[in-house]
Amino acid sequence: MSFFDKLKFDASGLIPAIIQEQSTGCVLMMAWMNRESLVQTIESGKTHFWSRSRQRFWMKGESSGHTQTVKDISFDCDGDTLLIQVEQIGAACHEGYQSCFFRSTTKAGSDFKVTEPQLETPENIYGKK
Amino acid sequence: MSFFDKLKFDASGLIPAIIQEQSTGCVLMMAWMNRESLVQTIESGKTHFWSRSRQRFWMKGESSGHTQTVKDISFDCDGDTLLIQVEQIGAACHEGYQSCFFRSTTKAGSDFKVTEPQLETPENIYGKK
Repeated sequence: MSFFDKLKFDASGLIPAIIQEQSTGCVLMMAWMNRESLVQTIESGKTHFWSRSRQRFWMKGESSGHTQTVKDISFDCDGDTLLIQVEQIGAACHEGYQSCFFRSTTKAGSDFKVTEPQLETPENIYGKK
Repeated sequence: MSFFDKLKFDASGLIPAIIQEQSTGCVLMMAWMNRESLVQTIESGKTHFWSRSRQRFWMKGESSGHTQTVKDISFDCDGDTLLIQVEQIGAACHEGYQSCFFRSTTKAGSDFKVTEPQLETPENIYGKK
């Protein structure tokens, strides 16, 4: 049986993909895939997504060079979420942090704090705009 | 500034929450929260979600006893995904696996395989139905 038969894409044809760095266990980001971007991800071995805001395919790192090489693709019991293990080149976050999850709530649960060092500035990654 | 001001709930008032076991780095599950279930999660220290299929609040472990104690709540650069570190009691998956992501694609990317031992049967967890 193809694993595609186990997957449930939502009404927009999308499925969320959690991206985890295999070597560290760090959850780097979450982005959306449609069937075609998942096929591209499998065929190329590099993560490809569907941008809901820009309505287009994108390969992670296409501008920054910060690509993700796929190591494992798993899916959950309901078939409606993917978990992809990768080897990450450079910072995963477009804001220059290792992970997109670089801010946590404080213990009171009202305020937040930055929990990671910024590895690069966006200007360094993408050039001045 | 409240971290709630940084969050973007979707058109249905929901935000996806990735649940990661803090001690192992294992990504256990992904489920959806609305603002109220996030407030309950913060106030109680146990994860609470909104079930899209059943249209009701649920606390993880309310039937199984497999609760999740919250250790950290982070949010991504776009403010549209949560990553919650927890201490997990028992199996996180309702099918009896540690993680809901207990199946991975094979190298060919077409078939899949089970990658975790089943710790309990659903009948053991929930009783015979």
